[in-house]
Amino acid sequence: MYNFRTDLASERRDIYKQASKEKGEIDGIESEKQEIDENIKVEKVIITNENGEKAIGKPKGNYITIDVKNLKIAQEDEINKASEVLSTELKKILDSHIDKQGEVLVVGLGNIYVTPDSLGPKVINEIDVTRHIINYLPQYVEEGTRMVSAIAPGVLGTTGIETVEILKGIVDNIHPKLVIVIDALASRSIERISSTVQLSDTGIVPGAGVGNTRSEISIKTLGIPVVAIGIPTVVETAVLVNDSLDLFIEKLQDEAKSNDYLNRLREEDNYEEIKEALIPKDYNLIVTPKEIDSLIENMKEIVSRGINGSL
Amino acid sequence: MYNFRTDLASERRDIYKQASKEKGEIDGIESEKQEIDENIKVEKVIITNENGEKAIGKPKGNYITIDVKNLKIAQEDEINKASEVLSTELKKILDSHIDKQGEVLVVGLGNIYVTPDSLGPKVINEIDVTRHIINYLPQYVEEGTRMVSAIAPGVLGTTGIETVEILKGIVDNIHPKLVIVIDALASRSIERISSTVQLSDTGIVPGAGVGNTRSEISIKTLGIPVVAIGIPTVVETAVLVNDSLDLFIEKLQDEAKSNDYLNRLREEDNYEEIKEALIPKDYNLIVTPKEIDSLIENMKEIVSRGINGSL
Amino acid sequence: MYNFRTDLASERRDIYKQASKEKGEIDGIESEKQEIDENIKVEKVIITNENGEKAIGKPKGNYITIDVKNLKIAQEDEINKASEVLSTELKKILDSHIDKQGEVLVVGLGNIYVTPDSLGPKVINEIDVTRHIINYLPQYVEEGTRMVSAIAPGVLGTTGIETVEILKGIVDNIHPKLVIVIDALASRSIERISSTVQLSDTGIVPGAGVGNTRSEISIKTLGIPVVAIGIPTVVETAVLVNDSLDLFIEKLQDEAKSNDYLNRLREEDNYEEIKEALIPKDYNLIVTPKEIDSLIENMKEIVSRGINGSL
Amino acid sequence: MYNFRTDLASERRDIYKQASKEKGEIDGIESEKQEIDENIKVEKVIITNENGEKAIGKPKGNYITIDVKNLKIAQEDEINKASEVLSTELKKILDSHIDKQGEVLVVGLGNIYVTPDSLGPKVINEIDVTRHIINYLPQYVEEGTRMVSAIAPGVLGTTGIETVEILKGIVDNIHPKLVIVIDALASRSIERISSTVQLSDTGIVPGAGVGNTRSEISIKTLGIPVVAIGIPTVVETAVLVNDSLDLFIEKLQDEAKSNDYLNRLREEDNYEEIKEALIPKDYNLIVTPKEIDSLIENMKEIVSRGINGSL
Repeated sequence: MYNFRTDLASERRDIYKQASKEKGEIDGIESEKQEIDENIKVEKVIITNENGEKAIGKPKGNYITIDVKNLKIAQEDEINKASEVLSTELKKILDSHIDKQGEVLVVGLGNIYVTPDSLGPKVINEIDVTRHIINYLPQYVEEGTRMVSAIAPGVLGTTGIETVEILKGIVDNIHPKLVIVIDALASRSIERISSTVQLSDTGIVPGAGVGNTRSEISIKTLGIPVVAIGIPTVVETAVLVNDSLDLFIEKLQDEAKSNDYLNRLREEDNYEEIKEALIPKDYNLIVTPKEIDSLIENMKEIVSRGINGSL
Repeated sequence: MYNFRTDLASERRDIYKQASKEKGEIDGIESEKQEIDENIKVEKVIITNENGEKAIGKPKGNYITIDVKNLKIAQEDEINKASEVLSTELKKILDSHIDKQGEVLVVGLGNIYVTPDSLGPKVINEIDVTRHIINYLPQYVEEGTRMVSAIAPGVLGTTGIETVEILKGIVDNIHPKLVIVIDALASRSIERISSTVQLSDTGIVPGAGVGNTRSEISIKTLGIPVVAIGIPTVVETAVLVNDSLDLFIEKLQDEAKSNDYLNRLREEDNYEEIKEALIPKDYNLIVTPKEIDSLIENMKEIVSRGINGSL
Repeated sequence: MYNFRTDLASERRDIYKQASKEKGEIDGIESEKQEIDENIKVEKVIITNENGEKAIGKPKGNYITIDVKNLKIAQEDEINKASEVLSTELKKILDSHIDKQGEVLVVGLGNIYVTPDSLGPKVINEIDVTRHIINYLPQYVEEGTRMVSAIAPGVLGTTGIETVEILKGIVDNIHPKLVIVIDALASRSIERISSTVQLSDTGIVPGAGVGNTRSEISIKTLGIPVVAIGIPTVVETAVLVNDSLDLFIEKLQDEAKSNDYLNRLREEDNYEEIKEALIPKDYNLIVTPKEIDSLIENMKEIVSRGINGSL
Repeated sequence: MYNFRTDLASERRDIYKQASKEKGEIDGIESEKQEIDENIKVEKVIITNENGEKAIGKPKGNYITIDVKNLKIAQEDEINKASEVLSTELKKILDSHIDKQGEVLVVGLGNIYVTPDSLGPKVINEIDVTRHIINYLPQYVEEGTRMVSAIAPGVLGTTGIETVEILKGIVDNIHPKLVIVIDALASRSIERISSTVQLSDTGIVPGAGVGNTRSEISIKTLGIPVVAIGIPTVVETAVLVNDSLDLFIEKLQDEAKSNDYLNRLREEDNYEEIKEALIPKDYNLIVTPKEIDSLIENMKEIVSRGINGSL
């Protein structure tokens, strides 16, 4: 399979189309764009058959991308609007898998002590859990309230345990009907860092985007549907340079400085070669924007309100 | 059972002796004191039979209290010495339950966002876990290295799930041979806050000390031995006032101001009545010293180095 | 002077009245209560002459206390209402001292690393400063915008410099017309911790309430008016015990257990004697409620919105 | 002047030599390298005359660069060694400007709430200040102890006040003999982020490296010598891409894919053009490595121990 170096289905679709010189839609992939306002855009990519699966290396299902422009300076209003959009889309997905009272377990992946990786645990702290109230103080909740529980299981490097092992144990013990997983993703573009949310109903592979593939968290491993909320928070230097290089060469060519060699350079994907050039110099770090603290803070509000609004 | 309002076996033993006017040792309770240096004291209380169990309301087993004086201004040296004492005692307990390679799961209870309750999760971040390295990169560890994993499961109010439910699921899935649980305790005396460690091999009931009894974490519920490392971090105002009142009346009597009524006041336990007097005024808060941040920071070092040294 | 052990003028007035058996108003002290809603109460104490000054040991001026009940579980609405009340009262005080465009320097006292002492620096981070924009990018602000700057100077133990020395230097260099100081206070009652705001136009003495008197921050030392926003965040154990003792004895007497000795105990102030009884046992700590993290977080919102709204 | 896009004198010297095709030393610039061990390297660059000043755009004086390899996984030992190196070099500089008892003010620039910018304030919290003890409790310090004070003045965006205005006020009020300033720098190479310390005795211009030039902090503005401890913590995407591009083209040429056009591309500095290509796409962010939290934590230890050891 092609190395997309992004977990976002919409970016993969674009890369596939460019690489395969497809002009129209790809067989097995449907998509639809929507502009909520000048700052918020929603794009849905649906993979409908095996051809679509193969094309972009993602399982059949729904992938919804919500982009929030200028999140680092977003105000209360914009954050609220973005969380409502997330809430609406999430509700649709939940309703297609479980009934209104179906118990949900919300899982926040990541490491609270590593800022770009701390979104998941921070969201968990804001989730309105009801499971213990329904169990011990049912008189304090309206009848028909959905059971919600939440957990931040930590990361393999800190726990020594695969996340899916932890979750499997908990799911088998408390029997929720669906799991929502919040996860940091890799994206191709640094301007998407912590300003894009991808919602999908196909589960996830933790760390897939940044090279450390680990066991999948999905209906296959947990036995119940897994809805993933993925947010790009880091980008690999080689990816950044590769894409910047394209922008740079494009600019050189616009200025009529083009030549055959540059043309070829641009058409090829130079990621592997750039990576090889950078690694000996310790240059191929995973990077994050300087403003990552406030980006994570704002994204935490969007995701936690979005989830609370939908449950 | 008497309401001891402390989770420390040595404090309970003292209270029982005072209340029952016992002069010598209680049948079923053995104890032994040791002074490591002018700042560190160790006391072992062993409950050997049912009479001892009944007397102080704790199951048969070993209870080791390590007191570190002036922890809030402790320097590197003192912290190291305290962690070595903990390490030595913990190693003895581990060796009496599992062999040198027996897999251990370390569990840090508490809420990272509530300073006096954040010790457990903070210690987990410092534990040298080996389970994933032994599983995936065995060439990087010496043969015979013990498998260690670690988890901070969160608190009922945030997760909606009983801690024991989470742990039961994980233990059944990854099969450690022993669990070490780090927990915040209630103590009778505010000067013990975050400067005492109690080590026991009988498991724990989360939150037992402060009135919100929840399911026990022990060999009964998990099926494997549970070693508990408990650290007092909070005290209830009514307890504080009750004990302060004793000190105050004692002083009045020393000054020959005594009278029958005061005498009786002091001999009685006035906790319930003080509590009743304070509650209508919203006075019976759980309190913690102003310096709790640095106390927790220093205690984190002692406990994490103590555990790492023993494993 | 009587040792009030509280920085709140309204508490001092009550203590003075009780001690002096005054029934009506004290000469030189006027006061007025207002109930905003069931959770928010406002009380104004005005010291009008030297007799009032002497009675409660505070300089002539206005002292406004805003009490917010149940702040630790306060929702967005309640926080907004409280900040509006603060805003309105603060605006009145500002208008009586400087004109609409008079430059203001906001100062947040305290130590960011000590949770109960971190309110000041946390508020500073939320203040809408305009001074640099007016100086460098005047086209981005409306004409007539007030110059606002803000600083968190740290504490003597960390800086080695008296706060007033730092502020004097800055004030002499940038020439604001008025200073607003946010400071942690001592209160008599633990239920007031981080749920009361005292506004005054007489400046402050940092740390006055808890025994470590340091140089005053006021028009005398800075040469411009100093408005103080004080929030109780800690309480001394001896104070807590003394007041709890009164509640306890009152309860004993209600139950007809009274006797002369108890009567006298209650009428006297036993603070000094309780303190003497507690100190040898390391019992006289400064304490704070277990929930101090979320109390500070909510109070930060109230104070920062209150200030921003008034400027 | 050439746009070096780095604050490190040693990087500027290299860039100048490459650009000017100088082989030997530049007139007015002396330098000397030293390898402390396999992980720590020290390089001294001394600018001795105006020609040197012009060549690399830095004032006459001493610039000492300490590089610590693999800081993000550095252990206690390595951190200690690095702090000793810093301490030794800093002591030499201090001794050349003030006597053993000359009062020092340590200033930590930066914003505690922005991880890559939080080093300065974090170091300040660890400085052993003595000024207040010498002033109020002289019996507790040895005679001849140097007066040390410390302050974290915040950043222009939060305070609205130029840092130099704040410092000028304090220096004029408390009269130290020398200022040590800790500052975040821009570097050319991402692998230097938070693993290099530059020591200089020529003061600094806050934010100079990343384009937002503000008033200088130096003997000119404060009237006393200013020693700067600068640590690169961020890098601009255009710089990263420009330098990565060189590495990439070099690799292409090694593989005999060279051609005239690439040759020229490499020899030229393409920063401005890359920047122009990236800006319209919101691509020219300031970035920092994913591991910035632990890098800052380790660097805090090195710098604070280094300063404390020298004072």
